[in-house]
Amino acid sequence: MRNLSIGARCSTLVCAALCMKAVTAFAADPLSDIRAFRTSHASEILEQYVEFLKIPNVASDRANIRRNAETIVAMMQRLNLSPRLLEPSAAPDAPPLVYGEWKVPKAKRTLILYAHYDGQPVNPAEWITGPFTPTLRTAPVTDGGTVISMSTASRLDPQVRVYARGASDDKAGVTVILSAIEALRSLHRQPTDNLKIVFEGEEEAGSPHLGDILRENRSLFAAQLWVVCDGPVHQSGKKQVIYGARGDMNVSLTVYGPNRPLHSGHYGNWAPNPAMRLARLLTSMKDEADKVIVAGWYDDVAPLGDTERRAIAAVSEYDDTLRRQLGLAATDSDRPLNEAITLPSLNINGMRSGNVGDQATNMIAQTATAVLDLRLVLGNDPQRQYEKLLAHVRSKGYYVIDREPTAEERLAHPLIATMMAKPGSYAAARTPMDDPFARAIGAAVRSSSDQAIVELPTSGGSLPLSVISDALGTRSIVVGIANYDNNQHSANENLRLGNLWDGIDLYAALLTHAPLSR
Amino acid sequence: MRNLSIGARCSTLVCAALCMKAVTAFAADPLSDIRAFRTSHASEILEQYVEFLKIPNVASDRANIRRNAETIVAMMQRLNLSPRLLEPSAAPDAPPLVYGEWKVPKAKRTLILYAHYDGQPVNPAEWITGPFTPTLRTAPVTDGGTVISMSTASRLDPQVRVYARGASDDKAGVTVILSAIEALRSLHRQPTDNLKIVFEGEEEAGSPHLGDILRENRSLFAAQLWVVCDGPVHQSGKKQVIYGARGDMNVSLTVYGPNRPLHSGHYGNWAPNPAMRLARLLTSMKDEADKVIVAGWYDDVAPLGDTERRAIAAVSEYDDTLRRQLGLAATDSDRPLNEAITLPSLNINGMRSGNVGDQATNMIAQTATAVLDLRLVLGNDPQRQYEKLLAHVRSKGYYVIDREPTAEERLAHPLIATMMAKPGSYAAARTPMDDPFARAIGAAVRSSSDQAIVELPTSGGSLPLSVISDALGTRSIVVGIANYDNNQHSANENLRLGNLWDGIDLYAALLTHAPLSR
Repeated sequence: MRNLSIGARCSTLVCAALCMKAVTAFAADPLSDIRAFRTSHASEILEQYVEFLKIPNVASDRANIRRNAETIVAMMQRLNLSPRLLEPSAAPDAPPLVYGEWKVPKAKRTLILYAHYDGQPVNPAEWITGPFTPTLRTAPVTDGGTVISMSTASRLDPQVRVYARGASDDKAGVTVILSAIEALRSLHRQPTDNLKIVFEGEEEAGSPHLGDILRENRSLFAAQLWVVCDGPVHQSGKKQVIYGARGDMNVSLTVYGPNRPLHSGHYGNWAPNPAMRLARLLTSMKDEADKVIVAGWYDDVAPLGDTERRAIAAVSEYDDTLRRQLGLAATDSDRPLNEAITLPSLNINGMRSGNVGDQATNMIAQTATAVLDLRLVLGNDPQRQYEKLLAHVRSKGYYVIDREPTAEERLAHPLIATMMAKPGSYAAARTPMDDPFARAIGAAVRSSSDQAIVELPTSGGSLPLSVISDALGTRSIVVGIANYDNNQHSANENLRLGNLWDGIDLYAALLTHAPLSR
Repeated sequence: MRNLSIGARCSTLVCAALCMKAVTAFAADPLSDIRAFRTSHASEILEQYVEFLKIPNVASDRANIRRNAETIVAMMQRLNLSPRLLEPSAAPDAPPLVYGEWKVPKAKRTLILYAHYDGQPVNPAEWITGPFTPTLRTAPVTDGGTVISMSTASRLDPQVRVYARGASDDKAGVTVILSAIEALRSLHRQPTDNLKIVFEGEEEAGSPHLGDILRENRSLFAAQLWVVCDGPVHQSGKKQVIYGARGDMNVSLTVYGPNRPLHSGHYGNWAPNPAMRLARLLTSMKDEADKVIVAGWYDDVAPLGDTERRAIAAVSEYDDTLRRQLGLAATDSDRPLNEAITLPSLNINGMRSGNVGDQATNMIAQTATAVLDLRLVLGNDPQRQYEKLLAHVRSKGYYVIDREPTAEERLAHPLIATMMAKPGSYAAARTPMDDPFARAIGAAVRSSSDQAIVELPTSGGSLPLSVISDALGTRSIVVGIANYDNNQHSANENLRLGNLWDGIDLYAALLTHAPLSR
């Protein structure tokens, strides 16, 4: 069927010769039937996606997490994907992994498609509309986008944005994978490879049980490659194939002042202020050029190879555009963005003591807390990186504990810090950029686009690729579909509808190894 | 009448001689009739106080502020105090000042009693029970105090605490002043001085209109001394007379990162993090010993006199006890607390960027904000102190503006800060410790207590004493009644009921210049 479809762009005589050649080999636009399917089914796809977004999906909200998993199972049953829920034996209450498969007769290799259905935590007060009240807008809120209803017109406008937690990260991944499969099923087309499908339910919580589930069901996960549908396309709008991801560790750090809040007039200058202590401690972690000066921070970093350096150099010219788009007169690092993210980071995710704005009061708080995000690269071990930070905090005179201090400890130690790594840390992973199966997938991604695509050795963001390779020895690549300005992990997360439609085309191409027709 | 009342403690033969002596001169316990009155009327006083606390009293909440003012007017009408509301002509919508008076035939001097009915802002999420749902507890929450009903027994237990915004600061002041007057009226006793009563409605907002109201109604406020009923007794539990107060200025400081929140993985190391920038900027303001190193910070400070130094030395031995109570192994300043508060301070009231705890997400925030509290001492001019801070921020490379930056400014300046002084700053003021009228009041305070009292040149907290002296040239002293551990300005503000009852006795003594009988 795909060999007979003629691309609309080949409708003039000018390209007749090219079209003839394409028809001889393969279709000029091998995705035209996919496009036709998802255009005619746009209403159903969008409605299913929006209903899915209404289910709260923070990993700690176990009741709603299960509702999400059951919703996905129902979708997969309709697609004949034999879905089942997998829980780790040691934590049956953990968010289940939804597993499914499509066995393809005569397929030589097996591909695992991965996405996750949980999302980052939410602070509803920061959202323009509720995080679980999906809302369509004509354009980004920040560009004056106004709320619109789900009219047919708006559904086909690629500029429309859907606002909700998980809209991009990563219910878009679930939706794109299932919609591409639905298109293939409806069009009676087969994937090139055997397919297995994995939808995780606690990726944003650090995938604490993924390794156990994989090890306990090893035979189910036999495959040659994982393709992870998570994250954005390149900032330029180009599609991208990413061969690795940074590891991640979150650390909570609290320092102490008086054991009850004090009036800042009666006690200011005399009682220690925890916010100032925290500011000083955080400042001690980076130099004026924002290089991390925690001892040994960069010691374990595996060097980049020539292929990786060339790939990074190929996209670095986009940095100036990005800087302008983000309103940045300067960046922390003189390195190109994609080189900077090959180094371990130390980022302040959040920092709080007392109140600001209308709720500010004249007081000295009892505590000040920061949450730090430690991104890890190839060579970093999470525990070793944590210990460097711990040694640094101790070197500043802090008595470091992993709980609230006792009354005795308060009186014995002038400087006390509570420091804890959140559960769910993992290391970085990279697949060699010359892996043959990965390169075939890259070629398929390229076939779905008019433009050149971006290929990079690693994502700055984290995905549990090392958890997969540690448990199974299997390699992974990342093919994201979201708009880069999706407010991923923040309030007002959104997906541009054009990226949803393009993503379905892309995954259909990827599943059928659609040829390079352009 | 008071000359005939015999203190209960003199009921044995052992003290008969003393009692005889007291009866000869004055009553042994000149406040026994006051105590009897407020004991027999405890229910009514407590109920009126609790009803008063139910009315939200943040100065910006104009509708409720007016309800508060009207409630006070009704109370004062019952006491025949000719109440009236005074608003500044330029801002008729501002929280009204409630004025009343009690003209005393043959009185030679006029005393103005001051308290305020507005409270600090609230963040309800931080309160154990709602800030405007007054709740009685058997003891402080932190000591395991449990909620109790308003039974008669609990009313007379001095350890009971009432939790609500304004419970101590400063609806306790309003309640104590009016209850003392009610006792005198009921007992047909006269104050020694003519009384004028002032209840301000925006003290916690920095008294932005108090000066205007005083100047516009100068004749109403003719008096020789203001007595301010606000703030706590000494930490030791001793009553205190304070001859001055620090001035105050709040400054909001915001620094910027990217123009939208970014994924900390994809952009961490490269996009500037505003929390780190703020931490670095705040750290630059103080040295490791917490001395302010903003250039010239301490330059204008008026030196203390010998009387002041002696008064401070007399109470400094209590600092070690206080340190232990507050769980502090060390303090910022090696100076005694009451000497430290004679210097200008720079305190971080609040500091925020992103989220912490369960709401933390892996992101780079757009902004980080701190609210700074600048306490001012004699010699400091608010505007001059602000300009020192402004020069400091500029010296760190910041482009400083008083609004959000434009897109052009973001691209032109690597470091941008929005810095603004909140309305309602004022300077410090001190009344000489040998002022005769003030000394007479001090003697009256002493007469209401078994213990020695504390006398200090200044409070660390701020009161608009300089606003009063600038407008009218009149001196002020401060006689607070709240328990020192009242969580003033924080969540879970509370008043110990024993302090309410003692406060009524104290103000009755103060109004009648009760003699030194013990």
